[in-house]
Amino acid sequence: MTHSIRRHHSNARMSKIVQHGDLIFLCGQTSSGTALASIDDQTSEVLRRIDALLLDVGSDRSHLLSATVYLKQIEDFAAMNAVWEAWVPPGAAPARTTVQAHLASPDLRVEITVVAACVGVSVS
Amino acid sequence: MTHSIRRHHSNARMSKIVQHGDLIFLCGQTSSGTALASIDDQTSEVLRRIDALLLDVGSDRSHLLSATVYLKQIEDFAAMNAVWEAWVPPGAAPARTTVQAHLASPDLRVEITVVAACVGVSVS
Amino acid sequence: MTHSIRRHHSNARMSKIVQHGDLIFLCGQTSSGTALASIDDQTSEVLRRIDALLLDVGSDRSHLLSATVYLKQIEDFAAMNAVWEAWVPPGAAPARTTVQAHLASPDLRVEITVVAACVGVSVS
Repeated sequence: MTHSIRRHHSNARMSKIVQHGDLIFLCGQTSSGTALASIDDQTSEVLRRIDALLLDVGSDRSHLLSATVYLKQIEDFAAMNAVWEAWVPPGAAPARTTVQAHLASPDLRVEITVVAACVGVSVS
Repeated sequence: MTHSIRRHHSNARMSKIVQHGDLIFLCGQTSSGTALASIDDQTSEVLRRIDALLLDVGSDRSHLLSATVYLKQIEDFAAMNAVWEAWVPPGAAPARTTVQAHLASPDLRVEITVVAACVGVSVS
Repeated sequence: MTHSIRRHHSNARMSKIVQHGDLIFLCGQTSSGTALASIDDQTSEVLRRIDALLLDVGSDRSHLLSATVYLKQIEDFAAMNAVWEAWVPPGAAPARTTVQAHLASPDLRVEITVVAACVGVSVS
């Protein structure tokens, strides 16, 4: 059995959303990159963007499977986690990995890449 | 067809294991972080933890699909590989990527994130 | 339903290709590592290698689901993107994440890890 691929918000470089079977791949989400935005503000904006993209395909944050968090400065770990933990629905946290990495723009302090599941009738 | 999501060892931040369909996502595994542990010891501990988590859901290291290895110092590449290669079952190596990245604690020298398959009857 | 795992180009360390269900995981692709190769040349070589591996299992670049791009120097972002965008088939860009990371050899300027879908009859 082979599933179709559905791409959303695509341009020449990337698709913001790729659906395949009941998997949803989002491109790495960053904030809009205001130079002086705090890690709290940037994390909040990233998570709002993830919410909006998942909503576009009828899913939501309770369906996250995995998340990779890239922090420009690992010293932001605790502050990012506080915003993250307030956002994750109780009992629905994804598998997560967090590492330090410089991002595409020097203003960016956090980028988060998630894989989620489509919403639907559970069969297992 | 939509599959249920089963999460194991979950807290407010992450689930150590997320199962969906016949995919298993583990959170990034690190050692317990003793400051003076060698790369050999840390890699061994990480791989023991991956074994234990896969066992929790009835799978094992012969079912790894992909692995991402993050090394605090890329100079540890050869030493990590020696432990890794002794651990991987012959003929069952996953697709792997290794990059350098600082990790959540300065004592951590290696973190490994894997995606594995559930064990079951093969149909293809 | 459980799918078999098919591994291709495997050695003790990794498999270059792992297929499971209709997912294809490739190991991180780098260039052959000539010290003086430009980011353009290295990116082109990486993408040719991805093409060749996908062809090995009957798929192609129009079936990419996600891509993670690691750049040794994030300053190479624009040059990498120019090669990347010329390579991606119109309307078929994957979800992508790009971060800076030192790679296994100091000569390597770019590594790309992709997940793709098998080619077959669409049922959804």
